[in-house]
Amino acid sequence: MAIHCPDNLTNAQPHKLNMESRLVEFRDKMAADLDRTMEFWLKNSHDDKYGGFFTCLTRDGKVYDETKYCWLQGRQVWTYSRLYNDVKRFHKPEILDAARNGGEFLMKYVKNPETWKCYFSLTRDGKPLKIQRTIFSECFYLMALSELARATGDPKYKTEALKMMDKILYWVRVDDTELGRPKLAGMESVNKMAIPMVILCLIDQLVTMEPGLLDKYRSDMKWCISQVLSHVQRDGKVVLENVSFDGKELPGCAGRLMNPGHAIEAGWVLTTLANRLEDNTLKSIAIEKFIDTSFENGWDKKYGGIFYFLDADGLSPAQLEWNMKLWWPHNEALIAFLMAYKETKNSEYFQKFSKVFDYAYKHFVDDVHGEWFGYLDRRGEINMDFKGGDYKGCFHVARYLMMCEKMATELLGNE
Amino acid sequence: MAIHCPDNLTNAQPHKLNMESRLVEFRDKMAADLDRTMEFWLKNSHDDKYGGFFTCLTRDGKVYDETKYCWLQGRQVWTYSRLYNDVKRFHKPEILDAARNGGEFLMKYVKNPETWKCYFSLTRDGKPLKIQRTIFSECFYLMALSELARATGDPKYKTEALKMMDKILYWVRVDDTELGRPKLAGMESVNKMAIPMVILCLIDQLVTMEPGLLDKYRSDMKWCISQVLSHVQRDGKVVLENVSFDGKELPGCAGRLMNPGHAIEAGWVLTTLANRLEDNTLKSIAIEKFIDTSFENGWDKKYGGIFYFLDADGLSPAQLEWNMKLWWPHNEALIAFLMAYKETKNSEYFQKFSKVFDYAYKHFVDDVHGEWFGYLDRRGEINMDFKGGDYKGCFHVARYLMMCEKMATELLGNE
Repeated sequence: MAIHCPDNLTNAQPHKLNMESRLVEFRDKMAADLDRTMEFWLKNSHDDKYGGFFTCLTRDGKVYDETKYCWLQGRQVWTYSRLYNDVKRFHKPEILDAARNGGEFLMKYVKNPETWKCYFSLTRDGKPLKIQRTIFSECFYLMALSELARATGDPKYKTEALKMMDKILYWVRVDDTELGRPKLAGMESVNKMAIPMVILCLIDQLVTMEPGLLDKYRSDMKWCISQVLSHVQRDGKVVLENVSFDGKELPGCAGRLMNPGHAIEAGWVLTTLANRLEDNTLKSIAIEKFIDTSFENGWDKKYGGIFYFLDADGLSPAQLEWNMKLWWPHNEALIAFLMAYKETKNSEYFQKFSKVFDYAYKHFVDDVHGEWFGYLDRRGEINMDFKGGDYKGCFHVARYLMMCEKMATELLGNE
Repeated sequence: MAIHCPDNLTNAQPHKLNMESRLVEFRDKMAADLDRTMEFWLKNSHDDKYGGFFTCLTRDGKVYDETKYCWLQGRQVWTYSRLYNDVKRFHKPEILDAARNGGEFLMKYVKNPETWKCYFSLTRDGKPLKIQRTIFSECFYLMALSELARATGDPKYKTEALKMMDKILYWVRVDDTELGRPKLAGMESVNKMAIPMVILCLIDQLVTMEPGLLDKYRSDMKWCISQVLSHVQRDGKVVLENVSFDGKELPGCAGRLMNPGHAIEAGWVLTTLANRLEDNTLKSIAIEKFIDTSFENGWDKKYGGIFYFLDADGLSPAQLEWNMKLWWPHNEALIAFLMAYKETKNSEYFQKFSKVFDYAYKHFVDDVHGEWFGYLDRRGEINMDFKGGDYKGCFHVARYLMMCEKMATELLGNE
């Protein structure tokens, strides 16, 4: 039994037993949820005619819109491949075939072979509908093909992922003219946390394909970490989404914007990297500032759940949906607190994992049809009864479940 | 007394008296609300240093963001100018000066003199921040300068408005390459109701400057009307935001999207034009399909108020904020039902005006600081306690108030 309980409690032993039994309960629930979640996507989302996946699915799995979104195609390929690679009961040919089918759709239709830009959305049969002047479609393209490379062993996917990484790093660190965004005189140089964050995820991804790549990307990683850390502001009391490139708070709504779920996600990504780099200072900042402080700021004391957006001065954020409860911040918080507990053995983090778990399984999970509702109102009532959507799809829920099932198993010492 | 009550009611006389007294109550409340609303903007929104207006204001009028949005700069210039032109108690030099000040900001900073594209947003001191690949910034630029031309008599504003109309009509009807939107293979030719709708508003606006312009734009107007009418779908049971150019329903979420407030606004705009064109068939469609049916579809039977978006098949729309109650659809409905009642003398429309009025004055109006809250949750509780915002500002509330105060006065026969 690998659970340690460092608290100086007179009732330390029953407390420990209680945590152990809750962890068993969590692990079993998560394992069942992962099976049910994947069943939902395997059954309802495959497009056998044109390849790729339907991601706009109603509560019971019907397709309500056939648009194919690059983010979601890429993420589903990644999820299937990662499950195939890492979770024994999903190491099955039908999972691999579906992943490869999605990867081929991406390579055939989503990437423009001349510019290496990826379309944001496409028709069912692969005709481009929309292109964004950012790097995110390209990042999810890379994530997909990199994990698929590991699953299939096919070198063409690895080559594709590495070449895309070169393009992304060029756009971010050298020259973004090819993204097509006009340069206007008033545009502040805004350092958005999402950019260095996603590149850290890409590096962490590429390294799973070939550990030696860590050295290749080490200086990019250091740069990204310093950029992400510059978002901790106001004496460590808040993590802001947008700051200046010299690490100062920006004026206005954009400057005060907090996205607690995103900051918490940054926290566990940084924790993972801190382990790779054996950097305990980074790990402390990741856990205390990004995970714990952001959770305390972001938790709705009145109705429970994590707010989507907040304003650091306590004003209403400009986003109309700011007080909604979205599924993915809760997935991030579950990963983050179980990881924080695993790293520190501080039982407070286990309590916070439990708190988020109880909220999530009361409000988000659909026991009837499987998968999670994506969008609740502030009170935790269902605002949209879709399982998919233009930003949902098969990713966050499954990623949380496979990561947390694994961590719980390790903590229980059953491996 | 100009109120007629055609209902075959045995209690027709008391009913008529009751409507009369309610109309007096409405008119007085609206007049007071207009004074309070304009007081809020006059007191809090003027930028005496750089010109133009602050539009991101907290509940009590403090500036929470200094960004200047073209839509809102243009709309505020229009509102001030229209009030100066049409409402005696606002025919004051300080209103005209502020309107001119805003108009100069628009001409100096917002329009690119080479391309005639207008920036979507700017810094406080007029440096461009963002440009959209649509025509709406340009439309509000035109609205502002056209009404300001009438207020000031200065021909430069009229020249500017007319030249911008040429550009907009060229982009919409001849070639939109200059807007900069990439042409992608899968893009359906989507006929968005907002485009012909706004052009109808522009024509209606330009005609106030010079009635003879009606002939100049008559064929454009006919084209726009036919485009707008093609949005009535499913045997007249719904008005859809997006259809094909040959008048068919489009697949997916975008095809099923309803925006009841927007359809109701289209209804009163069409009613106004039907009067200009002496077209009673158009007037009936405008009132019955666009106003009445859209209101019946859009009214929340459980909590009251008009939904922001709906899906024609009863699914959740893809917009996270679909079930919120925004201020402006209620302004449009108030204009539309008082106009429908004035045109038809059907007391049902008066009842619906009363219903929306009672909801709005219970939920949206801030009696303490003046003006309306913009964004309520489904239950009618305040979701954002701003008075301004990146799409709010000084326009819809004031436009409704000045139009409805005038109509109520005409109905009461006191002019």
